[in-house]
Amino acid sequence: MTVTLFRNARIYTPVDKGKPAAGAAQGELAVYEDGALAVEDGRIRAVGDLSSIVHSISGKTMDEVDCRDMCLIPGFVDPHTHICFARLREEEFELRIAGSPYLEILEKGGGILSSVQHIRESDEADLFVATAERVRIALSFGTTTLEIKSGYGLDTQNELKMLRVIDRVARELPIDVVPTFLGAHAVPPEYKGRSDDFVDLVIDEMLPAVTAQGVARFCDVFCEKGVFTLDQSRRILEAAKAFGLGVKLHADEVNDLGGAGLAADLAAVSADHLLAAGDENIARMAKAGVVASLLPATAYSLRKPYARALDMIAAGVPVALATDCNPGSSYTESMPFVIGLSVLNMGLSPAQALTGVTLNAAYAVGMGAQVGSLDVGKQADFLLMGGRSPAILAYHAGVSPVQEVYKRGKRVA
Amino acid sequence: MTVTLFRNARIYTPVDKGKPAAGAAQGELAVYEDGALAVEDGRIRAVGDLSSIVHSISGKTMDEVDCRDMCLIPGFVDPHTHICFARLREEEFELRIAGSPYLEILEKGGGILSSVQHIRESDEADLFVATAERVRIALSFGTTTLEIKSGYGLDTQNELKMLRVIDRVARELPIDVVPTFLGAHAVPPEYKGRSDDFVDLVIDEMLPAVTAQGVARFCDVFCEKGVFTLDQSRRILEAAKAFGLGVKLHADEVNDLGGAGLAADLAAVSADHLLAAGDENIARMAKAGVVASLLPATAYSLRKPYARALDMIAAGVPVALATDCNPGSSYTESMPFVIGLSVLNMGLSPAQALTGVTLNAAYAVGMGAQVGSLDVGKQADFLLMGGRSPAILAYHAGVSPVQEVYKRGKRVA
Repeated sequence: MTVTLFRNARIYTPVDKGKPAAGAAQGELAVYEDGALAVEDGRIRAVGDLSSIVHSISGKTMDEVDCRDMCLIPGFVDPHTHICFARLREEEFELRIAGSPYLEILEKGGGILSSVQHIRESDEADLFVATAERVRIALSFGTTTLEIKSGYGLDTQNELKMLRVIDRVARELPIDVVPTFLGAHAVPPEYKGRSDDFVDLVIDEMLPAVTAQGVARFCDVFCEKGVFTLDQSRRILEAAKAFGLGVKLHADEVNDLGGAGLAADLAAVSADHLLAAGDENIARMAKAGVVASLLPATAYSLRKPYARALDMIAAGVPVALATDCNPGSSYTESMPFVIGLSVLNMGLSPAQALTGVTLNAAYAVGMGAQVGSLDVGKQADFLLMGGRSPAILAYHAGVSPVQEVYKRGKRVA
Repeated sequence: MTVTLFRNARIYTPVDKGKPAAGAAQGELAVYEDGALAVEDGRIRAVGDLSSIVHSISGKTMDEVDCRDMCLIPGFVDPHTHICFARLREEEFELRIAGSPYLEILEKGGGILSSVQHIRESDEADLFVATAERVRIALSFGTTTLEIKSGYGLDTQNELKMLRVIDRVARELPIDVVPTFLGAHAVPPEYKGRSDDFVDLVIDEMLPAVTAQGVARFCDVFCEKGVFTLDQSRRILEAAKAFGLGVKLHADEVNDLGGAGLAADLAAVSADHLLAAGDENIARMAKAGVVASLLPATAYSLRKPYARALDMIAAGVPVALATDCNPGSSYTESMPFVIGLSVLNMGLSPAQALTGVTLNAAYAVGMGAQVGSLDVGKQADFLLMGGRSPAILAYHAGVSPVQEVYKRGKRVA
């Protein structure tokens, strides 16, 4: 098997120690100034300063790629997206920024239920085209693995349809997709006032159908006042675990319902949002090793405060960062934009942010063993970018420094 | 002469009434849902709903371009940049966001004087290559006219060198460049403690040499505590006016020295930054018709409050928006990024923001008669972008919706 040697790069990567990087480890990167990365059969065969890896590739047939002194970092993992949606909600955005109350927006046909309506009306092939277009944008910004949730169907048939589209994206695009079933994203209109009945539907009808379909790897619930209670969330996620799905959770976004603590109880891979999470439950997340997936672009778009990322890191919680790409509260596919916000508005160092969009994000979607760092044996998913260090991702504001994107050793953008 | 008809577009443009749009007019756009734009010899021959313009182009030889239902808006005018610089200051950015005091950064060789050192050491051809690369990025984000300041030379020879590079950009790239002489950007090391002597140098040696060279159209001064006083700024700008240059001003960025009032006194085209400007001087700007060029990406990068854009609009000041592209406080070429910040963090409506990056920005660089709106007779500088309205520029966060860029009717990006 031929080895491809990417040389003449400044390499920056977190180092995988078998778990997400927490506390001080979140800011620790391996740095190789005269770096080289050897790829064989789509996997990393060796990485380090050139002089330190030549022995491990000697005798091999070799192609060489000159990285022209660019930075080489792991491909981004976007661990929380709703990127499978049928239509933009641009008019709603305009109403919202002009100060319209959410209720008025709902009356005018906006809000999450409008996306549900759009999904239910959408043709499956059209939905694929729209989703794939956005995923290709994400790829161009350096995302090589991304999670995609269902959750705009809210009935069995349309949840299954979304998951089929997500699966088709996984099969047809050069990107790893982590499909998540989010049947409990909202209470659909036909169950208004009967959320317990809807929870029964999710557990008794959707979960069996979703697991029979075989696409979803995780189950997620929007645990929030007015959406699903802590008890309802626990019921759904425990049922999902019994079906063999991993679990994650929209937790404590607006009110502290204790979702962060539930994520710890259930050994969820991640708890997400967490703007209102209290210190005690943050400590429980740290103890249980649950990744906090934070969504700074959502705070930006909703003009809300940012989650307390530095407090969580100080408390020993591994922090990941995600776009939350969705048509209502965060319409962005750009991980460099998210990194910029996390550094400038949350106070992360570039090294902490890089760990948050690579290693910790990989663990947040159960892919820590395959992607998220440039360790030997992992997939050769990496980016070449301008600048001298990961700081360029925040320093070059609003402009992506990513120039080349490689998936399993092959250039894809 | 053949007419090219761009049809099947949703057209949004401010309407030029011979002056920048102030107050309520800043939010008023002409909208043509079945829009068409007729271009002849690089200029706008007609614009409007298709049915309303057919008579004005009948009998002409015609090419047609189907805009595929995209939005068509004027090209962006970026009215305040320091995009001509020799080297990035990425390490300084990292120190700054980690909390290093500015004095420590200066000791480690950072700050504006490091950019002066880089310019003085730079080869003119290399400086052109670096600058042109950034200008091409700006073009790809939709900027079709941009102001570029000198001001990292701070001696006659290097200020003239910068202006030659700026002039070469103007000649070789498909973009209108407005060159501004900013000899009084900082007091150079060799004049430390002798700022009056340096002001004499600017007036007695630089201004004559700069006007003899014939590139610069405007003169700018950094009027700020510890840089140039209000009196020094007035001396320089009055001398510049006597030499036939237009004037503009870095005013009241950190302290309220009265720069906004000076700009009104001198009938400057613009006063820029204005974070600390007081209400009385803002009222004087309104009365004098001075454009306020605001720089939200600088606030973002420095993690400072944003300028009071809505107060200024309410006071009748025409507001423009600029990148302030420079290697210290705002490394971005992206006007869509600036628009996003202005909408989400300054509270402008998309229509106000669009006027700020087109018509008002054009007046802020003395180009209101040529560019900045889609009025008949102006240059055919325009963009095609996705989405249904200018809101897309803020709604699609961190991702530019600009798909095609036209300069004088020709596609350039």
